[in-house]
Amino acid sequence: MNIVIVGLGNIGSFFYNYLRRNKKIIFNKTNTVPNIIYVSAKSLNKKRKFPIPKKIWLNKYLTSTKMKNVDIIVELIGGAEGPAKKLVFEALKNKKHVITANKALVAKYGNQLSKIAEKNKVNFEFEAAVCGGLPIIRSIKEGLIANNINKIYGILNGTSNYILSSMDKNKLEYKDSLSQAQKLGYAEANPTSDVNGDDVASKLKILTALAFNSYINNETILVEGIKNIDQIDINNANYLGYKIKLVGVSEMKKNKITQSVYPALIRKNSYIAKIDGVLNAVIIESNPVGKTVLQGEGAGAGPTTSSLVSDLCSILRGNVKFPFVMSDNKRKFASFQKTDNKKYSAYLRLDVKDKHGILSDITKVMAKNKVSVKRLIQNPTMNKKNSSIIIITHEAKGFSFSKVLSILKKKNYIVNIPKIIRIEKI
Amino acid sequence: MNIVIVGLGNIGSFFYNYLRRNKKIIFNKTNTVPNIIYVSAKSLNKKRKFPIPKKIWLNKYLTSTKMKNVDIIVELIGGAEGPAKKLVFEALKNKKHVITANKALVAKYGNQLSKIAEKNKVNFEFEAAVCGGLPIIRSIKEGLIANNINKIYGILNGTSNYILSSMDKNKLEYKDSLSQAQKLGYAEANPTSDVNGDDVASKLKILTALAFNSYINNETILVEGIKNIDQIDINNANYLGYKIKLVGVSEMKKNKITQSVYPALIRKNSYIAKIDGVLNAVIIESNPVGKTVLQGEGAGAGPTTSSLVSDLCSILRGNVKFPFVMSDNKRKFASFQKTDNKKYSAYLRLDVKDKHGILSDITKVMAKNKVSVKRLIQNPTMNKKNSSIIIITHEAKGFSFSKVLSILKKKNYIVNIPKIIRIEKI
Amino acid sequence: MNIVIVGLGNIGSFFYNYLRRNKKIIFNKTNTVPNIIYVSAKSLNKKRKFPIPKKIWLNKYLTSTKMKNVDIIVELIGGAEGPAKKLVFEALKNKKHVITANKALVAKYGNQLSKIAEKNKVNFEFEAAVCGGLPIIRSIKEGLIANNINKIYGILNGTSNYILSSMDKNKLEYKDSLSQAQKLGYAEANPTSDVNGDDVASKLKILTALAFNSYINNETILVEGIKNIDQIDINNANYLGYKIKLVGVSEMKKNKITQSVYPALIRKNSYIAKIDGVLNAVIIESNPVGKTVLQGEGAGAGPTTSSLVSDLCSILRGNVKFPFVMSDNKRKFASFQKTDNKKYSAYLRLDVKDKHGILSDITKVMAKNKVSVKRLIQNPTMNKKNSSIIIITHEAKGFSFSKVLSILKKKNYIVNIPKIIRIEKI
Amino acid sequence: MNIVIVGLGNIGSFFYNYLRRNKKIIFNKTNTVPNIIYVSAKSLNKKRKFPIPKKIWLNKYLTSTKMKNVDIIVELIGGAEGPAKKLVFEALKNKKHVITANKALVAKYGNQLSKIAEKNKVNFEFEAAVCGGLPIIRSIKEGLIANNINKIYGILNGTSNYILSSMDKNKLEYKDSLSQAQKLGYAEANPTSDVNGDDVASKLKILTALAFNSYINNETILVEGIKNIDQIDINNANYLGYKIKLVGVSEMKKNKITQSVYPALIRKNSYIAKIDGVLNAVIIESNPVGKTVLQGEGAGAGPTTSSLVSDLCSILRGNVKFPFVMSDNKRKFASFQKTDNKKYSAYLRLDVKDKHGILSDITKVMAKNKVSVKRLIQNPTMNKKNSSIIIITHEAKGFSFSKVLSILKKKNYIVNIPKIIRIEKI
Repeated sequence: MNIVIVGLGNIGSFFYNYLRRNKKIIFNKTNTVPNIIYVSAKSLNKKRKFPIPKKIWLNKYLTSTKMKNVDIIVELIGGAEGPAKKLVFEALKNKKHVITANKALVAKYGNQLSKIAEKNKVNFEFEAAVCGGLPIIRSIKEGLIANNINKIYGILNGTSNYILSSMDKNKLEYKDSLSQAQKLGYAEANPTSDVNGDDVASKLKILTALAFNSYINNETILVEGIKNIDQIDINNANYLGYKIKLVGVSEMKKNKITQSVYPALIRKNSYIAKIDGVLNAVIIESNPVGKTVLQGEGAGAGPTTSSLVSDLCSILRGNVKFPFVMSDNKRKFASFQKTDNKKYSAYLRLDVKDKHGILSDITKVMAKNKVSVKRLIQNPTMNKKNSSIIIITHEAKGFSFSKVLSILKKKNYIVNIPKIIRIEKI
Repeated sequence: MNIVIVGLGNIGSFFYNYLRRNKKIIFNKTNTVPNIIYVSAKSLNKKRKFPIPKKIWLNKYLTSTKMKNVDIIVELIGGAEGPAKKLVFEALKNKKHVITANKALVAKYGNQLSKIAEKNKVNFEFEAAVCGGLPIIRSIKEGLIANNINKIYGILNGTSNYILSSMDKNKLEYKDSLSQAQKLGYAEANPTSDVNGDDVASKLKILTALAFNSYINNETILVEGIKNIDQIDINNANYLGYKIKLVGVSEMKKNKITQSVYPALIRKNSYIAKIDGVLNAVIIESNPVGKTVLQGEGAGAGPTTSSLVSDLCSILRGNVKFPFVMSDNKRKFASFQKTDNKKYSAYLRLDVKDKHGILSDITKVMAKNKVSVKRLIQNPTMNKKNSSIIIITHEAKGFSFSKVLSILKKKNYIVNIPKIIRIEKI
Repeated sequence: MNIVIVGLGNIGSFFYNYLRRNKKIIFNKTNTVPNIIYVSAKSLNKKRKFPIPKKIWLNKYLTSTKMKNVDIIVELIGGAEGPAKKLVFEALKNKKHVITANKALVAKYGNQLSKIAEKNKVNFEFEAAVCGGLPIIRSIKEGLIANNINKIYGILNGTSNYILSSMDKNKLEYKDSLSQAQKLGYAEANPTSDVNGDDVASKLKILTALAFNSYINNETILVEGIKNIDQIDINNANYLGYKIKLVGVSEMKKNKITQSVYPALIRKNSYIAKIDGVLNAVIIESNPVGKTVLQGEGAGAGPTTSSLVSDLCSILRGNVKFPFVMSDNKRKFASFQKTDNKKYSAYLRLDVKDKHGILSDITKVMAKNKVSVKRLIQNPTMNKKNSSIIIITHEAKGFSFSKVLSILKKKNYIVNIPKIIRIEKI
Repeated sequence: MNIVIVGLGNIGSFFYNYLRRNKKIIFNKTNTVPNIIYVSAKSLNKKRKFPIPKKIWLNKYLTSTKMKNVDIIVELIGGAEGPAKKLVFEALKNKKHVITANKALVAKYGNQLSKIAEKNKVNFEFEAAVCGGLPIIRSIKEGLIANNINKIYGILNGTSNYILSSMDKNKLEYKDSLSQAQKLGYAEANPTSDVNGDDVASKLKILTALAFNSYINNETILVEGIKNIDQIDINNANYLGYKIKLVGVSEMKKNKITQSVYPALIRKNSYIAKIDGVLNAVIIESNPVGKTVLQGEGAGAGPTTSSLVSDLCSILRGNVKFPFVMSDNKRKFASFQKTDNKKYSAYLRLDVKDKHGILSDITKVMAKNKVSVKRLIQNPTMNKKNSSIIIITHEAKGFSFSKVLSILKKKNYIVNIPKIIRIEKI
């Protein structure tokens, strides 16, 4: 089979070299030789640590989609739009198998792309798009195919997990922990999508569609990042028996799906709370298998290549599958609901002027909106004029919290914007 | 595709009912209808909680292997020999796809069976044979196909793990913990293969062949059970910072593979040491993906059916694979070495008469045989005439330990047979 | 010197036998022979484990106060009134030295008795009245005579300390812990004065007068017992980082003395919190010596006899002292203030109906009365209709708490009488 | 009463000023005015923070012992010989009461001095010589006079306790911890007697004579300092469940007294092990009172003055006592035995070359000399050529340890001098 690789960044380079060196072993495992006929990238002349034979260099990457002798196109450009989008759409339309590590693209256009792939009976493979190295997509589509999944969640981004772990362990503020992560190579120069929840959201939307046999839903999803987590919140969480983790959680209850990405308080002794550093972990709760845990690196050129090759071998072996488990016309327009319609407990931090009667006013606002206090701690802060009120609530509806916060933030005794962090029971 | 199920015990019944109820969803996922044309078992008249239509009852199970309209035979009889063996050999020879949960059969005859399957271009699937529910075989063969595995290990038997966990938690002796497990349904009436290591050995041999692209090796494997673990050893282990777990470990070092099944001291703060109760966990160390962890139930009718259905769907989808990842003639006659040739640390418990000079004699024997003491505790026992010497050794070769023990057990100051438990660094 | 012992109960008997057996050693240490010329008790014929020579039996105990050859009278009858009172007043008036273990008598009439003793230049000794065995009175009057004491406090009653320790350790309710203590001989059949704080109050009043060179003050003292402490309060305290201990505390601040006896929340890692079982401990904070700790049994026939003999030897050696350190006319009519005028933090437990708005109402009442919340926990109780609100307050004046509680207990949402336990910073 | 103070160092100055300011309160407590008629010191002109009236300056301090109007001489010069010795001997011979804080002098000449004092019926008081501020001597002589003491022990030196605490807490070597203590004022420029055990020995010899009614014994006492304690030993102790403390221990068993001063391993959860920093604590085990604990500062000008004043007031009040509890001719020439004749467990650290057979040889030597191993740890050291063997022994006689060590230190596999630290069961 003839392969074109488009994109030769960190991951593309690793993949290209892996393929060159492991041709024989892949043949032994698939009975098919993986033949790289072309590679394409922005510039041939960019300095690389390895030589690229001129004869396989393709100047116009899109022409690959039209070439008869091309079987498989591996998209490693990145980004939901532009060249990556063009390439993948064209490739599938022209009946080329496509392999991609592009979670943004899959999350955004996966519904359309999978329909084209299915129609043209080619594979559209994206194991590398979600937790590189962890065979999570393959496990949902094949290993756990028998199961009725009701919840899938986990730590899906190593960068943000490293930042939060280090804020906790080294008593750092967010900014300092981020710079540290950047110095150590655990965060990119522009870490936006890693820390604002977008990266996790893309992964979670793909997992949700796979887990619940639904279409990808880009609208009804809560996405919050970790930028607003202060060291004091992590301290408070510790004191109260929790860790703060950026989690992605999708859940099916009474035929309604909620998708949420947020930093959450997680009980210290839970499995997830102990996943520190850059590790990823995904937990699937389903019937009849029970609870299944997958844990691994989740990112990096090596683990991502592991996923890309697993997709490649699947195609080489002729293992044609529906991209999202189920035939497109059988997939459900499942009912998604807002996280706000779920009941949950939360941690509130209210920085207030230190006057009598404030606590009573706050609890009055809460009571009126049916948010009930479970635990409360009131500490004078440094400047002694203000104090900080920490509240763990009983379960309440999301919109109740919203109302409470919108009322409170107008109160003249409130010093900073009130902070809410959900508590996730896992 | 037409399916015959042979064997209707606990697992067979669950699988049969699952298939009947989920025909449509499997069709949606595979584009193929799974049609049960026959079932067979010891007796039609055995009391069952569900009815079996007479028209699908097959009296002579072996005839199924000759029927033209049969595509897939699911073997759920059990046992390495007898009917199960006959059925699977005949089925593959007659170009029927075979699915089995029979780890004893696969471990013993897997080399021959896979050769026949490959020759006849049919699938020989046995995901359910190793840690039911955990997609471990699929992950090695597909998800992690790109990787060069150097170590695979874990807790592969829930019954023995439950017994050891409960000995630890409830301060029980082995016998009492076993009876408790039997009462709770975590151990069978005849628990032999669960507690003597055979069950783990079958699983480990299969995993070893898969992980290292080798043939199954039934000769060079160390297998020890948990019957000789005393409560006092678990207590001592705790005191010294360890848990005792029955582990299966396969490792490739300098092109030599060692397969070992034994109860081992595992550092308390390791991942494996925290896996309690009936859970199973498998850890794969490989390149370039790093460390991958899979954790789940590992046994029971539900999880096993999950695995059987994943095999079934793979066949329905036309995903033909080499049963052991690689084409039979490419598999290696890898070099296996005895565990005794590996270096490891160990825990020794020597119950001795309480006389002066004994310790010196013991350490002399050890020194002569190049086993060096790392830690040592000497406690007078109840009757005050004897004392118990606990030794944690530095690393030494397995045969050095054997020599030491064979010399010591002849000493007239030794009261009970000296006990050795290996320390596994994981 | 000729001695009369009046009272031959548990302590009297031990003391009598000690003296008989240790005449010589006491002579060696004091150069004076302690000669028991008479003993007196309710009945000569009561069964005793030792013989009493008829010639030393005195039928009418009061006659001893008139006999010329009597030098020292040891009062071991007990009780603040009746025979004990008569005996001690008569003895001192007739210029006999008096030794007593009677804390109730000393607390009630100590001011008058010490005046008579001083006038008549005889000793009035009562080391045994406060924490038998611990040389606490002697230490204040002699060893620490140079110091300006500002605080004296401790655990002054073994019975109540045992009951609270056992409630904590064995998860018992007050009643069950008391019965257990009675069975073990750590509580008397009628434990009233041990558990209602009266016993500690007597000791504390004596220590206060000694420590601050004041007269004994029987009016301005807060006395609370442990009967109202529930297991749940001890549990809550533990959760919040405290132990509950019955403490006696006397403090001099801005020339005002407060005397308090109450069960209090004490930080777990403090010295006092770790004093468990029947032990007593007294801590003195003074200048220039700093903090001095004395710890010991504090009760029982042996320790009490140790104290009685130390008093006796002091007299035998001719060590005449003012009974309360300072000459009577120099002692201060010091200013005592009510505990309610002190500021302290407290633990509140409010069992309430589970309705919205209650917490707001409670905190409103608190705010109006200047009691501010530091920590708050709200737990649904068993029956699910009520919940329990636990509050740790910031510091507030005692009367503020009183107001808050008197208002709250009238609220119709309050289910049980609100509970307050002070927090003692030691 | 007329008082002469000789010596105006740190303590002398504090005492002098205390007396001047508290004349009235002392009068109120003793009915006697303490009148300083003379002070004497090396130089009148030394810069002091307070004025000394010329009329009370005495040039020749010894003349004070002959003056008729002098009642009490307070010796604050220090040192067992020279001026201090002369002054105290002359004073007592001339029937002056003497108060001293000089532990070296009392320990060395206390037997002779007390005989003179008793003959001349004057007081010889030295409360300040042992744990300044803690009324330990007074408690033995008066408060616990009734008791038969069988053991007295404790932490009697704040400097060494601070150094060991800080070595433990801050992971410092002895030298660094000492410099730190010197910087903080917790150790003197010449810390010799504090760290070599001499200071503790002086105190312990005095306490022993008091506790057991014996003469002071300067010969039969084991004295070891803390200079040889390495950080690694403290680390090892921690690992094994112990703290290392410099303790003084005197014990009476079968009519034989042992006096020992040594750094010892003390179980972490014992009372003594928790005494950190510069605190002192003394524990007395006696009958019938049980266990009595006194804890306090133990040193410094303030606490020492507290003790000096308690001695002064005792004299002012006319409380004449035998200096060592009992009349001199009644004191026992008690039988003292060497610590080596006691049985104890010990911690051994043997740094050895890393060869086979050494452990066997060591345990052979131990067995021959009846020292039995309880626990043993063998660790390779940094340079990898040597290893360190840590042994906790069962109980053995002291001379058995001596033999073992004398044999071992000649072995050519021993790298450093073998280290032994006793384990004290308290």
